[in-house]
Amino acid sequence: MTEFAELETPCAIVDLDCVERNLRNYQEYCDEHGIALRPHIKTHKIPDFALQQIAVGAKGITCQKIGEAEVMADAGIDDILITYNIMGERKLERLRTLANRVNLLRVVADNEFVVRGLSAAFADNAKPLEVLVECDTGAGRCGVQTPEDAVKLAALIHDLPGLKFMGLMTYPVAGGTAQVEEFFREAMAACEKAGLECPVRSSGGTPDMWQAHLAPVVTEYRIGTYIYNDKSLMERGVCQEEDCALHVLTQVVSLPAPGRAIIDAGSKALTSDLLGLEGYGYVVGHPEVSVKGLSEEHGILSFDAATQPFEIGQRIRIIPNHVCVVSNMFDYVQLCRNDIFENPAFVAARGKVL
Amino acid sequence: MTEFAELETPCAIVDLDCVERNLRNYQEYCDEHGIALRPHIKTHKIPDFALQQIAVGAKGITCQKIGEAEVMADAGIDDILITYNIMGERKLERLRTLANRVNLLRVVADNEFVVRGLSAAFADNAKPLEVLVECDTGAGRCGVQTPEDAVKLAALIHDLPGLKFMGLMTYPVAGGTAQVEEFFREAMAACEKAGLECPVRSSGGTPDMWQAHLAPVVTEYRIGTYIYNDKSLMERGVCQEEDCALHVLTQVVSLPAPGRAIIDAGSKALTSDLLGLEGYGYVVGHPEVSVKGLSEEHGILSFDAATQPFEIGQRIRIIPNHVCVVSNMFDYVQLCRNDIFENPAFVAARGKVL
Repeated sequence: MTEFAELETPCAIVDLDCVERNLRNYQEYCDEHGIALRPHIKTHKIPDFALQQIAVGAKGITCQKIGEAEVMADAGIDDILITYNIMGERKLERLRTLANRVNLLRVVADNEFVVRGLSAAFADNAKPLEVLVECDTGAGRCGVQTPEDAVKLAALIHDLPGLKFMGLMTYPVAGGTAQVEEFFREAMAACEKAGLECPVRSSGGTPDMWQAHLAPVVTEYRIGTYIYNDKSLMERGVCQEEDCALHVLTQVVSLPAPGRAIIDAGSKALTSDLLGLEGYGYVVGHPEVSVKGLSEEHGILSFDAATQPFEIGQRIRIIPNHVCVVSNMFDYVQLCRNDIFENPAFVAARGKVL
Repeated sequence: MTEFAELETPCAIVDLDCVERNLRNYQEYCDEHGIALRPHIKTHKIPDFALQQIAVGAKGITCQKIGEAEVMADAGIDDILITYNIMGERKLERLRTLANRVNLLRVVADNEFVVRGLSAAFADNAKPLEVLVECDTGAGRCGVQTPEDAVKLAALIHDLPGLKFMGLMTYPVAGGTAQVEEFFREAMAACEKAGLECPVRSSGGTPDMWQAHLAPVVTEYRIGTYIYNDKSLMERGVCQEEDCALHVLTQVVSLPAPGRAIIDAGSKALTSDLLGLEGYGYVVGHPEVSVKGLSEEHGILSFDAATQPFEIGQRIRIIPNHVCVVSNMFDYVQLCRNDIFENPAFVAARGKVL
């Protein structure tokens, strides 16, 4: 147990009451609308929080990388979707090992190269690998471009040994709920016409989390940021300041000139992610102050030169623009409840890019 | 030993011949101009490379955080400058322990609060702590604002127990060599007039590395990026493509639409640092391709839709915009010489924000 005043800066502090409230609130929304919740662990990267998400009612979890899924399987999680095109001999070996360790492992694919690789790896496996076809419904990242292409790839998955076609997946553009509904409806109808059952339709994204029910074709929703929330979601009106569970705690180390304060949180703590926002985070209690610039170990706060809101040594909290990438910068986060700090949590899936 | 084809992507690969060439070239420049070289380890964060920098002729090293300095001291490095305002009971305890482990430990300070804290921690230490006054010569980060303020702080350091005033330090704005010369000359003259010897005048920064001799008042130069180099330095004309020792190796995982390729290096590998550049890195061999967007595990390459430079599964190399922050994303980097990969190097000082 650590007192607040003993915490070394910079660090990431997580309010457990707020986490629990966030998990419960969105689980209730999903339950109410009959949507299966499959949280993305990339936001916290901590097995205990994944277990808590499942305890609250989530169906399973989402990971982006095999390395993340391995960490979560080690903690006993046995229903995992990896939303990534997986290829290469070693990764496919690891995928097969993982599939045979957990109850359910599912992946996505958006092209024939990946599908053929998955099939080759699983052709002689006792249990087939479940595969969703990733669809580009407007985000402009991965995904087949049309419902027709989705059906073609679904048919290939269905035909190849070792694989089982299970449905569709998309990571939508913000504000793209209607596009998801349209693309999935068409693709599902075409799949069923081709004799391919399509039981899973997986969408996601925190920006439109409260609109998920407006795409009734969707059976499961993947969401990461909701556990902590961040400035990007505050600015979009998706959450309030008090819903932000992770703060970066930092200290003023210099007041070199009027209107400028230097803090010990730089891009190694807050990251350079702007997500279209002004400044590198929200200074709690100081809406008039902007986090104007970052170098690796320094943050530059800017404010009206006629005022002096800070003193050297003062601790301040910053709500980061994009909390998922902040989680990836710390080996540990400090957990607190009612300002009492428990043991820090090891961010076990940090840095798992493979 | 690993074959190139066996490397898992994404990863950071470092060409050792290129590293050695970079270290030698800049050491020769410093030797020629009588400047002591004190490399900043933040770029590589690897003790073996710090030892190599010293073996080539560097006087000592620079760190930003105590945690980095501790890692380097563990490897036997015994001349360390920490260019940071250090405060807080635990950090000061660690600083004192470290000071008594190594031959030379020096820090900087730009305000009275920090200086008084350092003095309190070292007042009864057998060996005084050497302190430089940090000066803001135009970068707008930390530092006293005028030569007069530098002298005032120098006098305080001189007067307080446990401390020894040793000189001046600045991190200049790019293109600010002349400002460094002017500020340091004035501050040094004023210090000497006040009876304060000022033997160390420490400047740094890779952008103006080849102009260091144009500020003859400077006795030592701190430089980090020169060991690896990066796209920001290529664009400034400070180095050529063949001087870039660290590449991010990545693989094309999807070709969803004309003019778009998706790679498995996102912001968890390349980071969102733009440093004023267009795009998130330089695709080796493909100057016509832009790294247009990043999410955490995906990079979006953009190119003329009438062409198709890539195929799925293809490996490509990217020179990052800002290589120091990329080093902080990987637990290991892959070392190679003549395309033969040796054991990966552990990035021991990664994530040391405390």
